[in-house]
Amino acid sequence: MLFHVRMNVSLPTAMPADQAAKLKADEKALAQQLQNEGKWRHLWRIAGQYANISIFDVASVDELHALLTALPLFPYMQIEVMPLCRHPSSVRDNDL
Amino acid sequence: MLFHVRMNVSLPTAMPADQAAKLKADEKALAQQLQNEGKWRHLWRIAGQYANISIFDVASVDELHALLTALPLFPYMQIEVMPLCRHPSSVRDNDL
Amino acid sequence: MLFHVRMNVSLPTAMPADQAAKLKADEKALAQQLQNEGKWRHLWRIAGQYANISIFDVASVDELHALLTALPLFPYMQIEVMPLCRHPSSVRDNDL
Amino acid sequence: MLFHVRMNVSLPTAMPADQAAKLKADEKALAQQLQNEGKWRHLWRIAGQYANISIFDVASVDELHALLTALPLFPYMQIEVMPLCRHPSSVRDNDL
Amino acid sequence: MLFHVRMNVSLPTAMPADQAAKLKADEKALAQQLQNEGKWRHLWRIAGQYANISIFDVASVDELHALLTALPLFPYMQIEVMPLCRHPSSVRDNDL
Amino acid sequence: MLFHVRMNVSLPTAMPADQAAKLKADEKALAQQLQNEGKWRHLWRIAGQYANISIFDVASVDELHALLTALPLFPYMQIEVMPLCRHPSSVRDNDL
Amino acid sequence: MLFHVRMNVSLPTAMPADQAAKLKADEKALAQQLQNEGKWRHLWRIAGQYANISIFDVASVDELHALLTALPLFPYMQIEVMPLCRHPSSVRDNDL
Amino acid sequence: MLFHVRMNVSLPTAMPADQAAKLKADEKALAQQLQNEGKWRHLWRIAGQYANISIFDVASVDELHALLTALPLFPYMQIEVMPLCRHPSSVRDNDL
Amino acid sequence: MLFHVRMNVSLPTAMPADQAAKLKADEKALAQQLQNEGKWRHLWRIAGQYANISIFDVASVDELHALLTALPLFPYMQIEVMPLCRHPSSVRDNDL
Amino acid sequence: MLFHVRMNVSLPTAMPADQAAKLKADEKALAQQLQNEGKWRHLWRIAGQYANISIFDVASVDELHALLTALPLFPYMQIEVMPLCRHPSSVRDNDL
Repeated sequence: MLFHVRMNVSLPTAMPADQAAKLKADEKALAQQLQNEGKWRHLWRIAGQYANISIFDVASVDELHALLTALPLFPYMQIEVMPLCRHPSSVRDNDL
Repeated sequence: MLFHVRMNVSLPTAMPADQAAKLKADEKALAQQLQNEGKWRHLWRIAGQYANISIFDVASVDELHALLTALPLFPYMQIEVMPLCRHPSSVRDNDL
Repeated sequence: MLFHVRMNVSLPTAMPADQAAKLKADEKALAQQLQNEGKWRHLWRIAGQYANISIFDVASVDELHALLTALPLFPYMQIEVMPLCRHPSSVRDNDL
Repeated sequence: MLFHVRMNVSLPTAMPADQAAKLKADEKALAQQLQNEGKWRHLWRIAGQYANISIFDVASVDELHALLTALPLFPYMQIEVMPLCRHPSSVRDNDL
Repeated sequence: MLFHVRMNVSLPTAMPADQAAKLKADEKALAQQLQNEGKWRHLWRIAGQYANISIFDVASVDELHALLTALPLFPYMQIEVMPLCRHPSSVRDNDL
Repeated sequence: MLFHVRMNVSLPTAMPADQAAKLKADEKALAQQLQNEGKWRHLWRIAGQYANISIFDVASVDELHALLTALPLFPYMQIEVMPLCRHPSSVRDNDL
Repeated sequence: MLFHVRMNVSLPTAMPADQAAKLKADEKALAQQLQNEGKWRHLWRIAGQYANISIFDVASVDELHALLTALPLFPYMQIEVMPLCRHPSSVRDNDL
Repeated sequence: MLFHVRMNVSLPTAMPADQAAKLKADEKALAQQLQNEGKWRHLWRIAGQYANISIFDVASVDELHALLTALPLFPYMQIEVMPLCRHPSSVRDNDL
Repeated sequence: MLFHVRMNVSLPTAMPADQAAKLKADEKALAQQLQNEGKWRHLWRIAGQYANISIFDVASVDELHALLTALPLFPYMQIEVMPLCRHPSSVRDNDL
Repeated sequence: MLFHVRMNVSLPTAMPADQAAKLKADEKALAQQLQNEGKWRHLWRIAGQYANISIFDVASVDELHALLTALPLFPYMQIEVMPLCRHPSSVRDNDL
């Protein structure tokens, strides 16, 4: 199942640079692993913002929640989830 | 370039059924043509709503606007556009 | 999987009484059938409003969307869907 | 009487880990006790958020307020309460 | 129990004057009856608006909902309900 | 004249307990004095929130403002004021 | 006492021109009478909108409400009222 | 030209009292000077809030911006500006 | 002086095609005249919407209001005006 | 392609004056360089706010995002981007 997820990141401006760098590196590593596993189907940056639009493909809502809350940046993100389903006019079979 | 588009459709409840059916059929035909041409990259239904999330891949903002305003349902839609760009953590080269 | 659904109903005040009565009767019949099948787990009225809070238990987002859009009052409703998952402090096994 | 309660939790990111762990453990213990007593009827996590949807079954608004303000996480929560009542299409007698 | 209710009235400007007058007279009669019965404790007009703030004193949420939906103007009102409880600094025993 | 006032209190979580206790005690004392003087006609807690709904009966807007800004918790409150007037359907002479 | 009033006017586009002209003429006549009486202290147009910002000087909230609801355009206006009081830095004695 | 300005002040609760007092005194002095010069035409307190409604009479938008950003409290204020113009029903020649 | 203006157009879907075409042609003619006169400095379409962002260069707020309300589409537009001024980092002398 | 960008700046009031001055000087230098290169077409201050409206002319969304996130004040800004396209009534060829 596909879920549309918007993540807005807000790191405290007072956070030490190395702590922020470590968080971002860990976030990137996990994001890429989940993409390679096919669970994080799409990941786009919203222009001008420290925010992304993502499409997750998971077996259940519980799996989605587990993935999102395990992200290193989770404590610094505001997340909104919107369930998607197949559109009757879609021509792509594997796009849900 | 990729653009994130949300379309909310609101047909007047008094619209005759055949007019609505004609509009939807025309919309579907054009949507599928644009998907086959690669300009309308993704098309998903938002669960529980007469609304969709779409990803367009166009050469310019003008092309995007021309495509959207040519949709048969355009007069009945509220549309929001958000420009997307490549995310540094994305692993897919062709996903922008 | 559980989904939290809020439905706000808005019938045109000019709708003939018998048409409204027919719509509501059909809605009630289907709502009760879905409750008996276990797909519509909870259905509560929001005090003072022609609106409800519902909990659906479905196998997929597609099933949820199919159920909601088949409701006789769907053209007259504004619907918001929020995916739920098991809370770590919940004591009820069958409550997701 | 049933009340629909949404709780959004926001712990300061600077809170020491053991203080946060203690708060969460106390919160969980009380939440489970109230569930076992039948006053906290349902407790679900909202996917992707440190937030929950709860259904309380209490004898009065005063009892509801006393329960909510006694929660260890209360100072860190934003809470919205919505009174519910029996829906005429509900088939479950004990669901209000 | 006390509930804070805000009612915003919106009559169609095209409604015939006698129909509007009849609705308002019926509304007033019922509102006064409920006040005399002690269920509608306070009723104030919001300055500059066709809207009111009311305090209801009822035995249950179901009773509140039944009272509100029985109002002749209910189909033309937007209603918001907020449960109230005794304030620890209140000096009036009978004010909840 | 009556004014509908909503006060949302937000004490910093880092405020020392005795400072908070002192503020609340002073607030309570003044609130009760104003109630006894008839200027603070009603005071209710909003369920689940550190907030109240109040009805003030004052001779002027200036008096209202002076009373509100003199409250010990004023620096920690967000306040919204709405002027009320007599409702034509009210049966209570002394309720404005 | 002074009240800050914002009035947004929304005439149905289908209203006959002479009916609209009559309404506006009546509105203007009453507005000018109230200004000459000193009750409507200021009246400004918001640039680009069919809306105004007004300052009323009245003896009570009831008087304000009576004045506003007697305006010929009242059924077509959305009105917001905000009570004002003397500012400690004001140098004008007669400006409240 | 007249501009409608709303200023919401928010001083940090941790600001030392003498620093706050100095800021307010400087603000008051400048506000009174600008009133005496005729540039700050009206200044009213919004009841119950640390906020004001002001009417400025300036020769240009640049002058308005220069005046506002020179206020000692500017770094602690949220400001909204709305251009006003003469209302066709106004009876006062010098009120724009 | 420069003003930032956003115009959202909403023509009734039931408006006859020739009436809409006439309105749009008149609007275009006037818009082009004002651009040629230098009063309407910029005019851009917002992608995906029947809306525009415009920059007006006028001698006063009254002139701006007169221009906007004279637009043939004015009765069908929602307009928001925001005064602009020279930015200290701007390198263009004639851009205000 | 043109993009409409609104930037709201919010520097912590506790930031040392020299750090703020350095940030602003660097921001100004880069802003002027980008204007001279033709990528930052317009830059206006919003009256009364520490905010600007800008028009960027870039070859792609990626270029826009790179420019915005490289601004020294980026960590302290809230940015909203809106894609623009040529308006059919525009008379200026080089204005998109």
